[in-house]
Amino acid sequence: MKDTILVIDAGNTKSKLALSQGGTLIADVLLADHEQTVAEALRLAAQGDAEGCLLCSVTEETEKVAAQLRDAGLPTSILSIEMSLPFAIDYATPRTLGPDRIAGAVGAFASWPGVSTLIIDAGTAITYDFLSADGHLRGGAISPGIGMRFRALHAFTAKLPLCNTADWSGDAIGDDTRKAIASGVMNGVWAEADSFIRMAKAQDPASVIVITGGDYKNFDLTAKKGIFARPNLVLQGLALLAKDNFDNIVRR
Amino acid sequence: MKDTILVIDAGNTKSKLALSQGGTLIADVLLADHEQTVAEALRLAAQGDAEGCLLCSVTEETEKVAAQLRDAGLPTSILSIEMSLPFAIDYATPRTLGPDRIAGAVGAFASWPGVSTLIIDAGTAITYDFLSADGHLRGGAISPGIGMRFRALHAFTAKLPLCNTADWSGDAIGDDTRKAIASGVMNGVWAEADSFIRMAKAQDPASVIVITGGDYKNFDLTAKKGIFARPNLVLQGLALLAKDNFDNIVRR
Repeated sequence: MKDTILVIDAGNTKSKLALSQGGTLIADVLLADHEQTVAEALRLAAQGDAEGCLLCSVTEETEKVAAQLRDAGLPTSILSIEMSLPFAIDYATPRTLGPDRIAGAVGAFASWPGVSTLIIDAGTAITYDFLSADGHLRGGAISPGIGMRFRALHAFTAKLPLCNTADWSGDAIGDDTRKAIASGVMNGVWAEADSFIRMAKAQDPASVIVITGGDYKNFDLTAKKGIFARPNLVLQGLALLAKDNFDNIVRR
Repeated sequence: MKDTILVIDAGNTKSKLALSQGGTLIADVLLADHEQTVAEALRLAAQGDAEGCLLCSVTEETEKVAAQLRDAGLPTSILSIEMSLPFAIDYATPRTLGPDRIAGAVGAFASWPGVSTLIIDAGTAITYDFLSADGHLRGGAISPGIGMRFRALHAFTAKLPLCNTADWSGDAIGDDTRKAIASGVMNGVWAEADSFIRMAKAQDPASVIVITGGDYKNFDLTAKKGIFARPNLVLQGLALLAKDNFDNIVRR
């Protein structure tokens, strides 16, 4: 279809794929294992008659995936800071700023223009990004994600079991090892997120908080004002970037 | 020397050894790699003419270390819930409660008898243990330690570097990847600890907070009332247990 671009968000654990047109996602989001990313991308691109692909990847396979898509005839660009972006990047080392963090900020900036925004991406790692009301992506913080904390406690100690969110009883004081680990991980993540939210509100009380990433559902957002869940924020940002950089993407 | 017992706190990363007598540590604390634990223990025991050894270990080598010490002629007991303890354990699965958590609680209970206590042991993992004023160890929480968080972010993602506390600039908003990781890890740990401290104070405003473990220095304790640093809390608890269980230890 005319002006259609396939967008891919290849994270540390899985890839998310969707078709975009005119700056918005036009079909369901597809989740794929890394090994299936290229096959699924080509299938989806053919299905939607996409003219090109915008790839956002934090994996080691970024260049390889892009090359395979290009070899198969799909013009593919890798998201980079050389692209046309709607805001300034204040990061001291912009080339090391995760492209998923840039794309998420683009999504948030479009939804809340002229508003201070804290973007929380709760995936394999949890990233916190502060975007100022006047359009400066200032950087932020990176911490271990929920699954990573469970995994690390098991992998890096001799005796602690591998737990998960199903072990979470809701009690702060766990009275067995699995409940204690679940309390430490879940209360720790919430307290950490709350502390960054408080920092954002202290800097600008009008700040909007956006939560995305695979673990967004594990954050209690009920009864919290100014906190929004946007599970596909990165893909939505990629759709906007695909529109703004359309000519450069399809040229390749 | 009469009544002298060697106490060993074998953690996930290192072992700490000291001589105890009459319930107190009587010499400097020695830090050893796990492979050196037996040799250092025998050297220290001979030096202090120890009559036995009380071993507290969270490693896989607990039984092996105890057997080697016994074979060398040093009567050695492994800390367990069968010993005489000064408080009740409310843990649903007391046999899986880390012996270091029990020993730390014994140290805290002796220092603040009849007071609600939250014991934070910031080591490879961070453990939070709630001890009630009437002498019940209720359990608590376990989360990844500072070093473990840095290590996990590097080990479990494709591109994040291995950082450490030296990368911590003090800025909540890190403007490069290393500073962002340091902010996420340090602010995360502090927010988490603060949240458990608030829970303890909410349950009993008179609660005392004790921080121990290798990372105790990374917690800002200045100007905080009712928060105490006790780097050797586990060994101090072991010294008390060695006194209370002396006959059983030297009998072996």
